Amino acid sequence: MKNIIKLDTTIISSASVVGNKEYEGPHGSEFDIHDESDKFGEKTWEQAESAMQRVALNTAISKSGIDENIIDALFAGDLMNQCTGSAYGLLGFKIPYFGLYGACSTAAESLMLASMMTSYGIFNYCGAVTSSHFCSAERQYRNPLEYGGQRPPTAQWTVTGSGAFIVGKGGKVRITGALPGMVVEKGINDANNMGAAMAPAAADTLLRCYIAENNPLYDADLIVTGDLGFEGSEILRELIVKDHPEIGDKLRDCGVLIYDREKQDVHAGGSGCGCSAVMLSAHFLPMLERGEIKKMIFMATGAMMSPMTLLQGQAIPAVAHMLVLESLLK
Amino acid sequence: MKNIIKLDTTIISSASVVGNKEYEGPHGSEFDIHDESDKFGEKTWEQAESAMQRVALNTAISKSGIDENIIDALFAGDLMNQCTGSAYGLLGFKIPYFGLYGACSTAAESLMLASMMTSYGIFNYCGAVTSSHFCSAERQYRNPLEYGGQRPPTAQWTVTGSGAFIVGKGGKVRITGALPGMVVEKGINDANNMGAAMAPAAADTLLRCYIAENNPLYDADLIVTGDLGFEGSEILRELIVKDHPEIGDKLRDCGVLIYDREKQDVHAGGSGCGCSAVMLSAHFLPMLERGEIKKMIFMATGAMMSPMTLLQGQAIPAVAHMLVLESLLK
Repeated sequence: MKNIIKLDTTIISSASVVGNKEYEGPHGSEFDIHDESDKFGEKTWEQAESAMQRVALNTAISKSGIDENIIDALFAGDLMNQCTGSAYGLLGFKIPYFGLYGACSTAAESLMLASMMTSYGIFNYCGAVTSSHFCSAERQYRNPLEYGGQRPPTAQWTVTGSGAFIVGKGGKVRITGALPGMVVEKGINDANNMGAAMAPAAADTLLRCYIAENNPLYDADLIVTGDLGFEGSEILRELIVKDHPEIGDKLRDCGVLIYDREKQDVHAGGSGCGCSAVMLSAHFLPMLERGEIKKMIFMATGAMMSPMTLLQGQAIPAVAHMLVLESLLK
Repeated sequence: MKNIIKLDTTIISSASVVGNKEYEGPHGSEFDIHDESDKFGEKTWEQAESAMQRVALNTAISKSGIDENIIDALFAGDLMNQCTGSAYGLLGFKIPYFGLYGACSTAAESLMLASMMTSYGIFNYCGAVTSSHFCSAERQYRNPLEYGGQRPPTAQWTVTGSGAFIVGKGGKVRITGALPGMVVEKGINDANNMGAAMAPAAADTLLRCYIAENNPLYDADLIVTGDLGFEGSEILRELIVKDHPEIGDKLRDCGVLIYDREKQDVHAGGSGCGCSAVMLSAHFLPMLERGEIKKMIFMATGAMMSPMTLLQGQAIPAVAHMLVLESLLK
């Protein structure tokens, strides 16, 4: 896999559903739907996460104007054990289902597979759906909420949110390229410093652009990472900007942007499958649609450990999948 | 998604790695590699599962004669929380990685995506790798092994095994069609009766063949399900054979075949991502290669619950992905 895979499809519509903390953040008014209780009418946090996916996909389908029955496939995933956020959340849709697990990179992985399928005519229309929920993730990965564990400064805050995208011909934002990530592990084994584990994977994918024939980094307006947070973003800069200073001003990170670091107690920023999905849907896609930016790189990173592998003393493998998005407006 | 997706690719090589119980079963001598300790040189069951994936993929690559560096992508998954069997197992391969979660259906899901990518020229060569391990699955889904819990008659035995497939042009078995599954849930909430949860998903996918233009069930020699086991296979017969008696003699199930029900204490048969993967690699592909059968349906089924969703009183959603495999010999 030497070169960027050329794609020719579009994002027809998208939707973002978030919790209260995300609504109170600097981009709160941009999201489609929020629930101040974070419960979305359900009894458990896990069922609330499934409800977010359901609402996000329904909203995206509704915005697209496309009949649900002609959507050929769903590519979906989340952070829950056995990816139950997606399997239960999308159960009611009579659409073929491909379950994915790429940790927080799933937002890009799902969009990438949907884009490949629609670019090459395997499917006409696909949905890509991902989610995360602070409360379900916290008790699964770390401690029950009631425990009130102290969070170190490098810890990130799992975003409560779900993003859904309808991919196929006819949308306002083109998807023109993809570079799937390789699994990278550089010895980080601290679950409270996932930015450090993921930054080398992001650097690996970006550096592979420089040996590709068609490097999209040169003329991209923005290079947007998923959820490296403050710590991981700094590490990525150290790893790549010293040799490639021209991309320094273009780097943005959804985990850095989604919360107000001064006013909201989030330490190193946001994380989770939902983080990059809702920021792409609510913030970056509209910029491309309005032509404010012409071309952007969307690269979601995932830390693929489990509590079990950490207890067994293993380091954290990570992956970063990259997409090239372009505005239809010249 | 009304019709069977036409594909044109082949399985170039495959490999099967199993544990001791599988080696002692009726097909034991057909598997490539086994380890009587089930540990594969590792300290923990989870790391043993990763080791199986590594060995399976290395063996499949070696058999294919293809340089690892020109394999474009890996599609992989397993049953572990956060799919760590795959992420850690395949870490050493410098190949782009797509993580999947479809429970036991992942064997078909990974082969299906690899087939789509190579049929349509998105990638030239792909790997598809899946695994399960009795000991890692038992303590994650049910009880620690030391607990010695009583198993009800409908319980299945998770296969310790990993199968790897190299997909692209030049192999001896063609992949000519695919029908991705939809998520189906019919109210079964007993984790010790996954066959009953998965049978309706298998029936749903098979019945969709009858409304497709190009139903492959008519001229298939065998219709092989993944791991319905004795219980699920009986339910599938009740659901579908009464209206379609012509397929009754063609139905086989990897979970039924892999162990000797009389001599091995496995109750309703085998299950797990590894079950259908190793039986396809070691038993059914050679039959196609030798021309003993001309055409077979491979349909792996997955039960996508987690211990958490069951504790919260939710039923088990399931999915069944279908592939059409054909011999190159006329």
